[in-house]
Amino acid sequence: MKRLDTLSASFEQDLANLLADRSSEERSVAEPVRAILADVRQRGDEALCDYTARFDRLTLPAENLRISAEEIATQADLVPSDLMDALKTAARRIEAFHAAQMPKDLDFTDNEGIRLGMRWTALDAVGLYVPGGKAAYPSSVLMNALPARVAGVQRVAMCVPSPDGVLNPLVLAAARLCGVEEIYRIGGAQAVGAMAYGTELIAPVDRIVGPGNAFVAEAKRQVFGHVGIDSIAGPSEVVVVADGNNDPRLAAVDLLAQAEHDEQAQAILITSDAAFADAVTAAVQTELETLPRTAIAAKSWEDHGAVIIVRDLDEAARIVNQLAPEHLEVLLDEPRAFSAKVRHAGAIFMGRYCPEAVGDYVGGPNHVLPTSRTARFASGLSVFDFIKRTTTIEADEAGLEKIGPAGVALAQAEGLDAHALSLSLRLGQIKN
Amino acid sequence: MKRLDTLSASFEQDLANLLADRSSEERSVAEPVRAILADVRQRGDEALCDYTARFDRLTLPAENLRISAEEIATQADLVPSDLMDALKTAARRIEAFHAAQMPKDLDFTDNEGIRLGMRWTALDAVGLYVPGGKAAYPSSVLMNALPARVAGVQRVAMCVPSPDGVLNPLVLAAARLCGVEEIYRIGGAQAVGAMAYGTELIAPVDRIVGPGNAFVAEAKRQVFGHVGIDSIAGPSEVVVVADGNNDPRLAAVDLLAQAEHDEQAQAILITSDAAFADAVTAAVQTELETLPRTAIAAKSWEDHGAVIIVRDLDEAARIVNQLAPEHLEVLLDEPRAFSAKVRHAGAIFMGRYCPEAVGDYVGGPNHVLPTSRTARFASGLSVFDFIKRTTTIEADEAGLEKIGPAGVALAQAEGLDAHALSLSLRLGQIKN
Repeated sequence: MKRLDTLSASFEQDLANLLADRSSEERSVAEPVRAILADVRQRGDEALCDYTARFDRLTLPAENLRISAEEIATQADLVPSDLMDALKTAARRIEAFHAAQMPKDLDFTDNEGIRLGMRWTALDAVGLYVPGGKAAYPSSVLMNALPARVAGVQRVAMCVPSPDGVLNPLVLAAARLCGVEEIYRIGGAQAVGAMAYGTELIAPVDRIVGPGNAFVAEAKRQVFGHVGIDSIAGPSEVVVVADGNNDPRLAAVDLLAQAEHDEQAQAILITSDAAFADAVTAAVQTELETLPRTAIAAKSWEDHGAVIIVRDLDEAARIVNQLAPEHLEVLLDEPRAFSAKVRHAGAIFMGRYCPEAVGDYVGGPNHVLPTSRTARFASGLSVFDFIKRTTTIEADEAGLEKIGPAGVALAQAEGLDAHALSLSLRLGQIKN
Repeated sequence: MKRLDTLSASFEQDLANLLADRSSEERSVAEPVRAILADVRQRGDEALCDYTARFDRLTLPAENLRISAEEIATQADLVPSDLMDALKTAARRIEAFHAAQMPKDLDFTDNEGIRLGMRWTALDAVGLYVPGGKAAYPSSVLMNALPARVAGVQRVAMCVPSPDGVLNPLVLAAARLCGVEEIYRIGGAQAVGAMAYGTELIAPVDRIVGPGNAFVAEAKRQVFGHVGIDSIAGPSEVVVVADGNNDPRLAAVDLLAQAEHDEQAQAILITSDAAFADAVTAAVQTELETLPRTAIAAKSWEDHGAVIIVRDLDEAARIVNQLAPEHLEVLLDEPRAFSAKVRHAGAIFMGRYCPEAVGDYVGGPNHVLPTSRTARFASGLSVFDFIKRTTTIEADEAGLEKIGPAGVALAQAEGLDAHALSLSLRLGQIKN
């Protein structure tokens, strides 16, 4: 853990070091991924079977790579009913928030008589990647599948590896809850390739979303352009802005809730109360003694954790904007006054009773958020990932007479004579 | 030019061939671009000077790489006033349409007492790449810079190469019209690297937009993640849906307005009237005889042009959705009835007096549109490229009591105990 103080002479350099791009730029898997994608594109299902045998130790005929409705039902029924109720609460709230997010179309006729519009339409088909093993989170299934459903996507296909053939009941229950019935036990770059290019078994999709390991991330990078992808997530991060009127233990646990994700995760406390900062730091050590994921959380806190002592909240806001954090907790009496000064953050959690974990599960907004300072230019997953815009222009004779001549002049200036002619011939017809 | 007929036995195969991905996947410039970016990142302005001397035959000290206000004014004043008026008409209409596009924030308290929100904020800084030489289009400057301005971006920096030191008056006039004053005479991968990573002369930006050659496109691919980028444009394309009640010459000129862009451009006519198709095909040949860019247009039409004869408009709409064209012209009496069936298109031009060239200059909607069938999942440039979303959640004790327990259950099921603890500790405090 690093301790920074804005009063220190080295503060700007310390902050710059903390800001230094933590996203790994290694491309060491680019070549194997390229080979796998080419193989899936060429050999289709046969390649899928081979890679599944090799990487997941699971040998099946191609048609059995799809998880049957009976298997899904059998697995989903294993989930205890109280957990099922919690999933349903989360799903209901996520669905409601994303429905509120849906934008409206535009359609108006302007002063020059030109009718202009913008229409939002859903993608036809989306592929959802879900990691297998320990990183398989049912909440991620909800967060990726429900916005697609709300957006009106007709087909959502899902790929989830099942190493040694072991299925994850919670993941399948979450998928069923979202109405996702087309599920394949395929993982890695081969799953991304199958969804991007299509095989006999799997029809191609238009966009691929969902988290994955380095192979999956690189495969998404490589198929980008042929299909759409979501952003490639880096390590997760939280900034907690707190005054001294907080229980240090709560702030400590909130920091550790980020740290427990991953050794690369980053948790940062910003406060103007140095004594409170000390208390939180001590509480972190106490909590680490009993936390089940203590090895991961301790390493994350040790390597990437930070406490920043500021003079006041204005300074805190300025630093938050430099950090552009994925998650921002505002543990203050007037969280809105502070939040109004924040320009760059993926999601903001306001008030002493709203830890970031609310947003991971049951808040409603999406928990897939921009990491590694990309909140400067990127946004969390939303219905906007599953819809696209078509603009429309309608002109009649009168409208073209008004705006056409300027178009002719510009087309000629750019040396695009057929462009100019397509306008001037019509303008000539109107005059005659 | 290929002629397809839905009545033909080979139609589906013919269409599949036409659909085959035309976007080049070659990455032959990846290595040189990687070297240039690394060099700019390491040597900064010195590298910019070296590459500008080498590629643009222009040797200048670093501080002169920025085009001075005087130079901009001198160049812009060279533009004739009627052309300046045309640029202003275009700018006014583009600005008005993009202003209408700006979305609203969300802020509401739901049934469980949780206050939820979604806030749009502008990016701080955007870099605009403008190609030099023959591909320098002032209309592109307007289409890229104005949405950023409307979105509220405070800093728009522009890079435009000036081979042999020659500046383009129209491009500088367009930039000045958009309020862009920070302009550098730098091009290629080095310009992209400078904007992405920053040098002494050029502060880094958050997102880079604008068209460019293969080096620029590859550089954008490589800096993606560190900064945002717009989509990498492929060759341009138009689909013209027309009945027999059109002047064949107009339809022919509209097809050629696409074909004249680039030898890789694609122009497709879809009609149910075979005699009209013949007349258009003949008119294309006639127009090619007098068109200044005939060599380019003839090659595009020869290699990529197509005429598709359909049974009816329903079949036409189905094929349009398969093609997902960048531009769609609907030369019909009731263009809206047809357009309502189109799910995938970048922009639609409706009516016999609205050729695609209207949209290139003075329509108002953006002319930067998704190419190569990516309208299936992508959209044209817009204010949405220059703003991002922050979601907000605010919960008090009563709200957390309602939704917190479901969060605890899910966090425990996912094995994230600090997440669960951050909720359960607060729930415990509320009860006591």
